[in-house]
Amino acid sequence: VNIDMIRAAAARLNGQARRTPVLSSPFLDEIAGRRVFVKAECLQHTGSFKFRGAWNAISASDAPGFVAVSSGNHAQGVALAARMQGRQAVIIMPQDAPQVKIDNTRAYGAEVVLYDRDAQDRDALMNDLAAQRGLEKIPPFDHPLVIAGQGTVGLEVAQDFKDMRGDVYVCCGGGGLTSGVALALEAAAPGLRARPVEPEGFDDVARSLSSGTRQRNTRLSGSICDAIVTPTPGELTLPILQRLCGPGLVVSDAMALRAMRLALERLRIVLEPGGAVALAAALFLPGEGDVLVVASGGNADPAMIARALAA
Amino acid sequence: VNIDMIRAAAARLNGQARRTPVLSSPFLDEIAGRRVFVKAECLQHTGSFKFRGAWNAISASDAPGFVAVSSGNHAQGVALAARMQGRQAVIIMPQDAPQVKIDNTRAYGAEVVLYDRDAQDRDALMNDLAAQRGLEKIPPFDHPLVIAGQGTVGLEVAQDFKDMRGDVYVCCGGGGLTSGVALALEAAAPGLRARPVEPEGFDDVARSLSSGTRQRNTRLSGSICDAIVTPTPGELTLPILQRLCGPGLVVSDAMALRAMRLALERLRIVLEPGGAVALAAALFLPGEGDVLVVASGGNADPAMIARALAA
Repeated sequence: VNIDMIRAAAARLNGQARRTPVLSSPFLDEIAGRRVFVKAECLQHTGSFKFRGAWNAISASDAPGFVAVSSGNHAQGVALAARMQGRQAVIIMPQDAPQVKIDNTRAYGAEVVLYDRDAQDRDALMNDLAAQRGLEKIPPFDHPLVIAGQGTVGLEVAQDFKDMRGDVYVCCGGGGLTSGVALALEAAAPGLRARPVEPEGFDDVARSLSSGTRQRNTRLSGSICDAIVTPTPGELTLPILQRLCGPGLVVSDAMALRAMRLALERLRIVLEPGGAVALAAALFLPGEGDVLVVASGGNADPAMIARALAA
Repeated sequence: VNIDMIRAAAARLNGQARRTPVLSSPFLDEIAGRRVFVKAECLQHTGSFKFRGAWNAISASDAPGFVAVSSGNHAQGVALAARMQGRQAVIIMPQDAPQVKIDNTRAYGAEVVLYDRDAQDRDALMNDLAAQRGLEKIPPFDHPLVIAGQGTVGLEVAQDFKDMRGDVYVCCGGGGLTSGVALALEAAAPGLRARPVEPEGFDDVARSLSSGTRQRNTRLSGSICDAIVTPTPGELTLPILQRLCGPGLVVSDAMALRAMRLALERLRIVLEPGGAVALAAALFLPGEGDVLVVASGGNADPAMIARALAA
């Protein structure tokens, strides 16, 4: 993946994805002890940056339909991007996924195929569906066109903060967004450096960066930041992160909830816990100089918003 | 007030106010039975459009300081705009105003002067302060520079939806925002027509428009939409509304709360009840054709957000 692929993605996304605003508040600056700028990607179509990578992958292909495994933001991004381009989307979800996520994915126009976590192999199911129905697979992060699409977030940041020096904190799961942003900054705003931010206990990227070898999470559930919990960094993304990113940062669930509350009160945006970890790092971890934050998603259900308000 | 004054305001606000994004969701379109576009002015500095009028009035003056009466969004808009321009702001607030509003106004750099609602006349107090300290008064809506500043919202809408025909629903108190938007649309997007939206029981503008004479509200408290409750339309604003707006629309508090909840879930923005009435009208009142909504403010406290989530 290189900057030309990200620029090509930006051209494809032009007029289709939203150019999300950068928000700030003197109240947040005071808490952080530094100026904090928040790229509100929760305001993207479907409520997360995932729409960008999906749109780019679909635009670059002439396949009539696409298949993805996801119960969350990637599902919705693929579903809407496919519908907007008149293509078919098939989303494979566990049959015990929350009904609201299944309903939302269907409402964006996708066909949802449910599978039994205990009895079925979801990757085999995806391969079968792809082969039988001529669908193209769109992985959630480890794919050049997906990384390039997410990288357009970094290109917009670079345009807005071209001459700034400092860190860009990015909520990080498999590393698709973080690696794309890092590549865009390298080319278009070399004074800025991406820093992955993860939830405590699910810091495979931070540990992989510090050890120099791919690390895995010991568990995959139990975090409220479910949107950014993945087993291990991608094969494409990790080398990019190693080459370009500063050390990973880690925040607690409690910090993510407090960041959600402050985003509601001071920025008037809804973040989901996984989309709030970068803001939490800017507000509650030590650090110097102006900082940019990519607030990656806002698909929090009412119960989680209520929980943040009480935090 | 005319379009040239609004264009001059836009030039003054350029690079200082945020150009707020227009959001939408297929879920909202389905509820409304029409396409709904939401100008998210809750993402403006200080959380409401009020920053625009304040910035414009302050920029156009060379006074060293300004005085305003407000316990809400106007107070914060004047405070921050003054501080950003290195001027002084004195805000007169009732001594029983919620502490958080007093604290926020002070945090934006203003001097807060408290008065006793029962024993003191706030307008006399403002006039005394203005005379003694050489401060210029900034009224909340009935002032040409304030109306022109708020009108820049309409200019941005006109640029984004130049060729559209239909209604622009605007949350309406004294009519500063609605009249400014109406003037901008008349000149720059004549296919669009402003429609004031008010809370049930506080529909002085709707009744003034339908009767042709200035009407008053019988009470001034008891609505959760406190940000847009005013005694009667302005002397400057009402003639503009009469000349340019379609009939006023009225929604219940329950509708405003449901619109708040849908804005949280589907647009990932926080609206206050008074800033949600225009969206409520688009979603829950009968109407035809694509509709634009100005979501005017997002300064809801956590208890009100929690109430909306339970609606």
